[in-house]
Amino acid sequence: MSVASSRHVRGGAKRQALLYARHTARRFLAELETFCGYPTISGDRRRADDIQRCARWLVARLRDAGLGQAYLIQTAGSPIVYGEWMGRRDAPVLLIYGHYDVQPVAPLNEWRTPPFQATVRGEHLYARGASDDKGQLFTHVKAIESFLRTSGRLPVNVRVILEGEEEIGSPHLSSVLTADPQKYACDVAVMSDTRMLGKGRPAITYALRGSVSLELDVRAGPRDLHAGYFGGAVANPIIILSQLLAGTHDRHGRVAVPGFYDDVKPISSAERRFMRRHGPTDEEILRNAQTRTPWGEAGFSPYERTTIRPALIATGIEGGYAGPGSKSIVPARAGAKVNVRLVPEQDPQEVASLLRNHLVSSTPRHVSVSVRQHAGARAVELDRRHWAMGAAATAYRRAFGARPVFLRSGGTIPVVGMLQDILGVSTVLMGFGLPDDRIHAPNEKFYIPHFTRGIEASLHFMTTLAQAGLAKAPPEL
Amino acid sequence: MSVASSRHVRGGAKRQALLYARHTARRFLAELETFCGYPTISGDRRRADDIQRCARWLVARLRDAGLGQAYLIQTAGSPIVYGEWMGRRDAPVLLIYGHYDVQPVAPLNEWRTPPFQATVRGEHLYARGASDDKGQLFTHVKAIESFLRTSGRLPVNVRVILEGEEEIGSPHLSSVLTADPQKYACDVAVMSDTRMLGKGRPAITYALRGSVSLELDVRAGPRDLHAGYFGGAVANPIIILSQLLAGTHDRHGRVAVPGFYDDVKPISSAERRFMRRHGPTDEEILRNAQTRTPWGEAGFSPYERTTIRPALIATGIEGGYAGPGSKSIVPARAGAKVNVRLVPEQDPQEVASLLRNHLVSSTPRHVSVSVRQHAGARAVELDRRHWAMGAAATAYRRAFGARPVFLRSGGTIPVVGMLQDILGVSTVLMGFGLPDDRIHAPNEKFYIPHFTRGIEASLHFMTTLAQAGLAKAPPEL
Repeated sequence: MSVASSRHVRGGAKRQALLYARHTARRFLAELETFCGYPTISGDRRRADDIQRCARWLVARLRDAGLGQAYLIQTAGSPIVYGEWMGRRDAPVLLIYGHYDVQPVAPLNEWRTPPFQATVRGEHLYARGASDDKGQLFTHVKAIESFLRTSGRLPVNVRVILEGEEEIGSPHLSSVLTADPQKYACDVAVMSDTRMLGKGRPAITYALRGSVSLELDVRAGPRDLHAGYFGGAVANPIIILSQLLAGTHDRHGRVAVPGFYDDVKPISSAERRFMRRHGPTDEEILRNAQTRTPWGEAGFSPYERTTIRPALIATGIEGGYAGPGSKSIVPARAGAKVNVRLVPEQDPQEVASLLRNHLVSSTPRHVSVSVRQHAGARAVELDRRHWAMGAAATAYRRAFGARPVFLRSGGTIPVVGMLQDILGVSTVLMGFGLPDDRIHAPNEKFYIPHFTRGIEASLHFMTTLAQAGLAKAPPEL
Repeated sequence: MSVASSRHVRGGAKRQALLYARHTARRFLAELETFCGYPTISGDRRRADDIQRCARWLVARLRDAGLGQAYLIQTAGSPIVYGEWMGRRDAPVLLIYGHYDVQPVAPLNEWRTPPFQATVRGEHLYARGASDDKGQLFTHVKAIESFLRTSGRLPVNVRVILEGEEEIGSPHLSSVLTADPQKYACDVAVMSDTRMLGKGRPAITYALRGSVSLELDVRAGPRDLHAGYFGGAVANPIIILSQLLAGTHDRHGRVAVPGFYDDVKPISSAERRFMRRHGPTDEEILRNAQTRTPWGEAGFSPYERTTIRPALIATGIEGGYAGPGSKSIVPARAGAKVNVRLVPEQDPQEVASLLRNHLVSSTPRHVSVSVRQHAGARAVELDRRHWAMGAAATAYRRAFGARPVFLRSGGTIPVVGMLQDILGVSTVLMGFGLPDDRIHAPNEKFYIPHFTRGIEASLHFMTTLAQAGLAKAPPEL
């Protein structure tokens, strides 16, 4: 069989797959609704059973899709859902990564419909995880099904890894990959867990910020004290914690932790010009944030502040009595959670140490502060000219009728760095989300036309990747 | 009947009452345990039924005690339990005030035994409200019973007002009193809701701080945002709230709100000498606070800082995600509760306005801050040479075998000012609590020997008051 005729057959297979996907769209959406019904909050240990149930359901979906090899890889935490199809000796191996775990849902009262009862309103599917990442990862599962249930073959070899701990920093994935990297050997990875610029405006993410989180606990005494009897004569942990948090920033929105910016990679003016030309405008970012007032480090645009500049974010605070009514106490303790977003060349451990030292040394002597650090992830930059990036661009163009732009993201996907380090592969971040999908927030949603087009984009991507893979590596054949 | 023989009979009646109280001590304690079992948290609307049940139970106890006139006065909030005995035309009228509502119990996990399951451990009764104020008010109820169930008469006329909203600032009591002040006409009031200096070391409180509370709400946007996508480009309400709270104090523990100290009444050096001679030492206060390090306004002792100096206390804070694990958000809002303790000549409204203006003017323009103010109470100073103070001192000496000291308290009892303003009477603050009773905190307790001696002190107080009342007002007879 010549290359030309092979292409022809593939083209035919793709047409059948596209038709199957269109005819089966309603069932695909119904399945996604079921998928979103599992409360797979990885940060909440009480959800461990739900996570197991969801993982088993996903294995069944991979088998339905036609992946004979599909099973669970148990870890000390959530199981990894694994599936593979390795039926084309001469085609590249594509690793499809996604995560089926989700963020917590609080504040629950701000949800218009229950977070784990997926609800269609207008052209959107509302549910926790609808966009991040259940809806997005499901595009690839359904693309695989569309190929295998029609022509019985995929254009490329595929390994599917669906993780259940992405939202808590993927604590077990790396040891699974490290234990047997040969088992997961691949040429490139694809991941749909990022945003497009807007409806019908595709985007390929080529850079991600890193992340490291700390928890602070300020304790002034062994127990709450009566505010009347002791107020004025004992240190107040809420005030001290406030002083510590206030001290993390100067008046101009710049992080005031000594050494914080020391390792930040300088960005060339050519890159900044590229960003200005292709990136979202200030207005778009502020509109997505539903605010009118810019805020942040002077000398940088909102797009730059959220991508090539690090940020320190207080994500939670609690102390004393915050329930209904009031309670007249000087509380014994107060705590806060802080997340730092990192840019290339900042080391998560090092930045965490700088911050920890700054906080501890700023705490009055007679008050105890403890700082607990969570797993960190470094920032990632990907090569915009990688061969698989071109395949993704073609796939987007075919599915959405528009050329994708290349974007930096302020988000963090630790797995991208992990795949680079452990498997030595680059990842194509082919996202289908919208900037206002409210991921991590109440009323998260996924734009249903992007679910449909996403499945098509995945079909096109696998086909194009097969061709690009052949073109890219002739010496190896 | 001559005055002398009347005294003789009274003395005999007192002996009988004292014997009755001693013989019935076990049942009295059992009843107090039942009383403490009602979860009468006035700050929690879900407890309204429990509050009604407890109030009805108290009316039954007043009737058991022999008060024919005992009933509920319903209000828009908790009912007032009222009882009276007006059987002595020539004796003074004593108003006994207490409150049967309690503080919230959070953090529940720090209680060794459930807060509403009164538990005896060693010489203490552990329960929310055991000391503040169920155990203390019950001494008077049981003293009344001890008189009426033996001689059938009290040495003085008595009106009993047991309130169910003291912990939320007595929002309905003043309108009840104002509506019919004649009905509650009395010569003096007594209230047991304060502390002694230590075990067997009685104290009469002659000054109370005032109090006013505010709730702050800082809002930066309509919804939580993804910390990666937006962190660095949008204002963070936790950081802004922290800046506001940090800005309420200077580095030396002094309140930094402009004008805050303007109206503070200067205290004479004679009064400060009196305080040094009779008040608790620095060590005692720090030991009660379970801390070793003094904190607060320079130039004042811990006792002074908590009595003749105002204080600003952050009592609660919350914002973003503070549950298990973490959530990568820039929260939309954050809130805090602040309590200010006031000293004589500071006006609650005025101080609240100063604080509100300071907070609002310190908030960045593009962020909204709302400040909600709760009912306030001014500080109170009582005359240490009032005739009823002498009667209380005698009663303490007889019951505890020790002379009471005269103390200022940092606490607030708005009712004292209310009785002064509406009924024109002074209050004797005859407390039986201990400094480490953990009122408002987990594992609140009441020292059982003080419950027993408190009943005896109340018996002695009524007897001595009758004599002092006769001595004080001969022209009126």
